[in-house]
Amino acid sequence: MKEPIRIGIVGYGNLGRGVEQAVRQNPDLELAAVFTRRPPDQIHSQAQVLPVEKSWDFRDKIDVMVLCGSSANDLPEQGPLFASQFNTVDSYDLHARIPEYFERIDAAAKEGGNLSLIAAGWDPGLFSLARVLFNSILPKGKTYTFWGKGVSQGHSVAVRRLPGVKQAVQYTVPVPETIERIRKGETPELTAREQHQRICYVVPESGADRAAIETAIKTMPGYFADYDTTVYFITEEEFAASHTGMPHGGFVITTGTTGGGYRQQAELRLELANNPEFTGSVLAACARAVYRLRREGKTGACTMFDLPVGYLSPQSPEELRAKML
Amino acid sequence: MKEPIRIGIVGYGNLGRGVEQAVRQNPDLELAAVFTRRPPDQIHSQAQVLPVEKSWDFRDKIDVMVLCGSSANDLPEQGPLFASQFNTVDSYDLHARIPEYFERIDAAAKEGGNLSLIAAGWDPGLFSLARVLFNSILPKGKTYTFWGKGVSQGHSVAVRRLPGVKQAVQYTVPVPETIERIRKGETPELTAREQHQRICYVVPESGADRAAIETAIKTMPGYFADYDTTVYFITEEEFAASHTGMPHGGFVITTGTTGGGYRQQAELRLELANNPEFTGSVLAACARAVYRLRREGKTGACTMFDLPVGYLSPQSPEELRAKML
Repeated sequence: MKEPIRIGIVGYGNLGRGVEQAVRQNPDLELAAVFTRRPPDQIHSQAQVLPVEKSWDFRDKIDVMVLCGSSANDLPEQGPLFASQFNTVDSYDLHARIPEYFERIDAAAKEGGNLSLIAAGWDPGLFSLARVLFNSILPKGKTYTFWGKGVSQGHSVAVRRLPGVKQAVQYTVPVPETIERIRKGETPELTAREQHQRICYVVPESGADRAAIETAIKTMPGYFADYDTTVYFITEEEFAASHTGMPHGGFVITTGTTGGGYRQQAELRLELANNPEFTGSVLAACARAVYRLRREGKTGACTMFDLPVGYLSPQSPEELRAKML
Repeated sequence: MKEPIRIGIVGYGNLGRGVEQAVRQNPDLELAAVFTRRPPDQIHSQAQVLPVEKSWDFRDKIDVMVLCGSSANDLPEQGPLFASQFNTVDSYDLHARIPEYFERIDAAAKEGGNLSLIAAGWDPGLFSLARVLFNSILPKGKTYTFWGKGVSQGHSVAVRRLPGVKQAVQYTVPVPETIERIRKGETPELTAREQHQRICYVVPESGADRAAIETAIKTMPGYFADYDTTVYFITEEEFAASHTGMPHGGFVITTGTTGGGYRQQAELRLELANNPEFTGSVLAACARAVYRLRREGKTGACTMFDLPVGYLSPQSPEELRAKML
């Protein structure tokens, strides 16, 4: 048995917990420590929990640090800082800012002689791989990405901020008729409204004006105005019983035409009962790939586009060829 | 505009034609020549067609040679021979013999200072990538591969060899109820019969004993005895009108459980109106990746597991990060 790959986790929210659970499912990975900005005794991890300032002492004890902070608030600062000291994996997901973030991480990681994988997960991540794979094979094609059914944190927060709203969750749901059209091979231009619908479950404050809340949601620019939105008012009990899970998923579908005029279709579909646990599982597999690529001498920033798929697996190339090809 | 990557094709059956059509859909690829063992004037390609003996003269004029011969009859000899002279891509698909074939190609390619990608296509190929990707992310999971609806050449040939059969085609079809169970998240052990069914369309010789043909098919060991098989007798006209296409496809589905007990599911689905044209499109994208990896210094044999997914795309890493991630 080879020595396990030593993993560190920075930030212990839903994603950090998901990474810990994933590491425990993989015998070739070992959780060395969790680092947090909260008081360590408030963190219920099976690993040792330390204040984030202690992480520098672990430079020789951790092979890959998985950064589980938020893309908006934590990673812009944490990412480059840790990339200068450790091999890292993160799930940076602000699509528009990825090129700029990549450059900053690349400089920091190269300076430290480390390898840093950014924007890992399922979108960006697996869905990005599917978009590139399908488009590379079917250059005369059209690709659609559908998200859901799943919770959108940004939209949920926007609803919760409205006056009279005590608690709320927003589900993004692909429009079933549209998916059916796309799967049949149609390649229409789609408006936002045709592609996704939005469903809100709202617990109102007692005495709140429900009609006003519903109107405020449905007309909210940027978030809801361009979609068909349905609002359900429910009790706190219903909310607690049915709407605290974190399901998500979606589809990437490419329909293309090859030279003889034949229609070819490829689809990647994910149906996730728990989004952060699945994302954590992707990050754990990516940590394995980063460890291997670094051992080959690669440094700087990279994305899942740069990973040979076999590097994500605990199996050797020989095993993969014999059993999985 | 950079110089296009110069592609050669060895063997001009359905797959060779598919590769030519794919190359024409990709402006960064250019078909330098087609090599054949048949009289070149019988080949209707838009590129120059030459006898296969002339291929050695093209060592400086072709960047990647795509080998389109059969796995059983051509590649065992052709593969190592060409790997010693060219970078190559092939679609070797005899799963059980891949390790041995890999070793022979690896030795030949290393000796010639070339890079050879074997077993490219969709299975082995894209489906293999999905199996590895999904299993790496969901180690506590179960993976199923379904093929079809599609034509199985081996089974069609087996039927055509029976006495009294003039023409025949066999479709492999996933059992719809089983797919439904798997998509719902069940993870049963499945028999061959539960997973796929077989449908044969047979044109009988005039006066042939249809009942005898049907029994001979349904009881044929190795091919049909373990499956529910349906046999339809049709006319030559019906055969020509409806059964000369080459559709195929299938599914790879992994259902796994992450640490908190949540069920997570991933699926890759392909629905191909023309199997050899799609496979040819995969080989063309793989030729691009082989060209790039060889320029980085890699030699020997490799599989699609060894390819960074981004290398399959004509877009630069910067473009991919900005637009596809």
